[in-house]
Order: sequence, then C-alpha cells, then structure tokens
Amino acid sequence: MINLEKDTNMNKKDNKGIAYLGLPGSYSYIAGKKYFGQNCNMVSCSDFKSIFKKVSEDICNEGIVPIENSLTGSLVENYDLLQKTSLKIVGEIFLKINHYLLGKTTDKIKLKEIKNCYLHPEVFSQCRTFFDTHPWIKAEFTLDNGSAAKKVSEIDNKQSVAIGSKMAADINKLKMLTANLVADCHNYTRFAVISKKPNRGGNKISLIFSVEHKPGSLNKVLTVFAKYRLNLTKIESRPAKVKPWEYIFFLDFEYGKNKKEVEIALQKVKQHVIYIKVSGRYKKGKVYAA
Amino acid sequence: MINLEKDTNMNKKDNKGIAYLGLPGSYSYIAGKKYFGQNCNMVSCSDFKSIFKKVSEDICNEGIVPIENSLTGSLVENYDLLQKTSLKIVGEIFLKINHYLLGKTTDKIKLKEIKNCYLHPEVFSQCRTFFDTHPWIKAEFTLDNGSAAKKVSEIDNKQSVAIGSKMAADINKLKMLTANLVADCHNYTRFAVISKKPNRGGNKISLIFSVEHKPGSLNKVLTVFAKYRLNLTKIESRPAKVKPWEYIFFLDFEYGKNKKEVEIALQKVKQHVIYIKVSGRYKKGKVYAA
Repeated sequence: MINLEKDTNMNKKDNKGIAYLGLPGSYSYIAGKKYFGQNCNMVSCSDFKSIFKKVSEDICNEGIVPIENSLTGSLVENYDLLQKTSLKIVGEIFLKINHYLLGKTTDKIKLKEIKNCYLHPEVFSQCRTFFDTHPWIKAEFTLDNGSAAKKVSEIDNKQSVAIGSKMAADINKLKMLTANLVADCHNYTRFAVISKKPNRGGNKISLIFSVEHKPGSLNKVLTVFAKYRLNLTKIESRPAKVKPWEYIFFLDFEYGKNKKEVEIALQKVKQHVIYIKVSGRYKKGKVYAA
Repeated sequence: MINLEKDTNMNKKDNKGIAYLGLPGSYSYIAGKKYFGQNCNMVSCSDFKSIFKKVSEDICNEGIVPIENSLTGSLVENYDLLQKTSLKIVGEIFLKINHYLLGKTTDKIKLKEIKNCYLHPEVFSQCRTFFDTHPWIKAEFTLDNGSAAKKVSEIDNKQSVAIGSKMAADINKLKMLTANLVADCHNYTRFAVISKKPNRGGNKISLIFSVEHKPGSLNKVLTVFAKYRLNLTKIESRPAKVKPWEYIFFLDFEYGKNKKEVEIALQKVKQHVIYIKVSGRYKKGKVYAA
C-alpha cells in the first residue's frame, strides 16, 4: 500500500517533514504515510491554520489536509486557507475511511455499558446513525481521532471508548470493539498535499474563481470546459465572505493528453471571470484504505 | 421585522407548529419566528432527522432547517434529508448572524477569567478566530445555541459563558459580554422551510440531479439554464454515497416573469440527466437580523 514512488521523490537532504492535523493514527496521519511512504517525517499540528503556517514559513516541506468527505461535504476552512494563502495543491489522495469503536479491552464489555465516546466532530457527523441508535453513549469531542484514541488509552475504565482507525488502535494499544461503524455507505475523504512550490505537471487542476452575478455568467465559463472536453470532477459555489450576494466557485477538472488545449482553455476562462486563481496542478489521486 | 404576511398565511385551525432544532433562542428558533411571525408555535427537536420525521408524520405542519452558511458552507445532513425524504422546500429566509459572548453578569468579569464556553460545533467553526486568540477558553459543545445559553443560566459561576444570539441572552436572562464576535465577515445562514405539501408558485427552484460521468455532461444541463436566462444562485457537486465516483448536483435558480419557459427548461434538463428531483419551489427569501 505504500506509495514508494512518491517516497523516493521526497527531498531527503532537506526533510523538514509533512505538517498534519492531530496525533499519530489520525486519518490525516494515515493519508500522509500512504502518500509519502512509511518513513516520512510527520509533524503534528493542532489546527489547519498551523499546517498552512508551517508550510508557508518553511518549517515544513509540505502539508496534508482533508478537503472533502463523501458523507459530509467540503472542509470549507481548508478551501478558505487555499484561497487566502499562496500555497498550492501539488498532490491528492483518497482515503477509504473505516471507523471502529476502540476500547482498552474486549473482555466482558457490552455496548450497553459504554458511557462516553471520544471523537472528532467531523467523525460524529459521519457516525450519526450509530449515536442515534445508541443514545446512552455520550459523544465527547477531541482535536482529531489520534487524540481520541490516546485519551482512552490514558483513562482507566472500560466505559470510555473512542472512534478511530485501525492504526489509531494499534498505536495506542487499543482493541477494535466493533466492525466498521459506517459500513453501508461509500465513506472516503479526499486529502490535498500542499506546498509553497507549485507543481507544473499532472493531469488535474483546481481553480478558484468568481463571475458577475447575472444569468449565464457561470455558463460562459463552463462552456469553455465543455468545448475543450475537460472533465469537471467538482464544482461548488460559496457565498463570498466579504461581499454579500457574490459567489466564489471552486472547480476541479481532469485532462488527458490535451495539455496545450488546457492552457488555451484557461486563457479563455479568464475572459469570463472577475477573479481567478489556480490553486493547484497535480496528478489525480489514488484510493487507499485507512 | 415580523413577517406578518406569512403569519396570516398559517393555517390557524390546524396549527401543529413548526419543528426546529434546539431550544428557544437558537438561530433556527429565531428564523422560524421571523418567517412565520412571533405568535407561531415552535416545536423543539433534538436533531435534524427528528424535524423531517415530525413533518413527514404530520406531527408538525412545517419545519425550518439551516441549509447553508456563508462562512462554513452547506449543511450536508439537511441536503441529504431533502434528497431521501419526500418533503419539499416551500420557503427560505436568510438570517444575519451575530454571535455574542453571553454570561450571567458583566460585573467585574474579564475575558482572561473565562474558563469554558458552551456553543454549537458549527458556531465554533464560525468563531475560530476568537478561540485562536483566546486559547485559554475551552469550547464545550452543545446541541444548539439555545441549549448553550440555558446551560450557562443554570451554572453558578462567572467563568462559564456561552456563544449565542441576543434573543438567547434575553430568554435566559444572560448579559452580552462582548460585541459581535464575527464582525469582520458577512456571516449569514440560509434556512429552508420544509413541508409535505409542495408549493406551486414562487420565483426560485431547488433541484437535485446527477449526470453521466463524462466530459460535458454537466455543461449540457447548464446550457439549458443559460439559454432560458435562468439565474443560478447555487451549484454544488457531492460524491454519491452509494456509488463511488458518481456525483449528485444541488442547484438553485431564480426566475422572473418567464414562468412558462421555466417548465420548458425543466423538461429539457430532464433529457440530459440520469436522475432529477425538484426539491422545492418557493419565493426568494429576505434577509433578517438575528
């Protein structure tokens, strides 16, 4: 499962590490290890802003941040940070998320005896059905799932559990008490690898732009993509934070061998927008199991 | 600020009330009061699913749910519930959100003395800058902002505060300790009024659809809207939960006097999609201050 190709691409001489959210075993940590290889140096951060800051200030080479989950949608904060800062997306990876209930022991513990469960608010949203059907279990929020597992490993009772990955269980010497809690859905998270140095190659581009608020404005932009047969993989409108009723669009598209046409298309798109920023060029990501 | 017109439109003989999230003073509660008038009967629910259930089972006439915030994006759970259930959007209202720090007393209390703050996770996301700059204040999550204010009103110390609306302060006899915490941004939430009985009129339509995953598929749909000069106010792609790599689109558009053309356009759109659902017809909402 290790992406050896990427691992060898790392600058070994100047390995300042990869900034990520949380503690070892968090999904961001797993995504980083899958993308850069098991030997990469992961640097723990307490929030997304710190990740962008560490990369901007050359404290870390790169950062890895979740940007989209199939069950809960876009992680708006990271899109905002991509818009505000000059960092670029240089890679992506999809992680198939399996959430397990983690506890200190599987010995004589019944679900009915569990009192509280540590987890990240985002994971709570993904596991809502579990909490709806087990209303006696109180959710307690933590920074990430690595921290949730660590917390349970430090508490001396069987009534406290965490939700997290298999890796979080292994690292914190916890047991998996259940099967995957969200087994009936296709639950995956898309992570972006961010860097100060933009990538020139790849087969996928992310854009941020805004158009005039009048009928057909957006369509003029999208017609360009259709004309050059560029496949949109994401489009999202977001109200602008500073100007009421103005919208910002986040758009991703893939392309094949038509690289020259991509540049022509981008020039044509520029004629129909009032603001545009290429937030990254990168290779379409692969899917890994967490 | 009371929308009297809507108030008189309510069926007084059969007033089963409006289902909303949380306790009096929550932003959903305020949105309901603004939309239906001060005398409407608001029915408290503990989660969004219960709101949809109460309306589906005729326990309540209508429900009101947040669907989009200018700072944090779409509330995916409610879009999912709109997709899954047969309820329709029959109205919308925008609420300008002002978050205040609420405490029992303004007497001799300094920000540095505050230890913990009760609030909804969504509000935490909106107030992130405040918590970044006041790291000694611990966030404690509650169901809604009404509950947060109620909790503080029941605790006998000055170190515990809540974040919420002016109305939450008034209802729970709390004081506003600060000015609006998110004053530098245009922070508003869009609420949808949901009902079993679809609306036939209005000047805005919400759609849910999916298209084939190949270049230009989405554009064929959007070209129809441009041709009939229908103004898109929202578009969002979301990975489908059951089929990997398939996307669902959520789209809103406004129209004027061209009502006949809207129906023709909808028929044409149907030719280019593999699934479509009109999730509501309604009158474009007004903006109120919370």
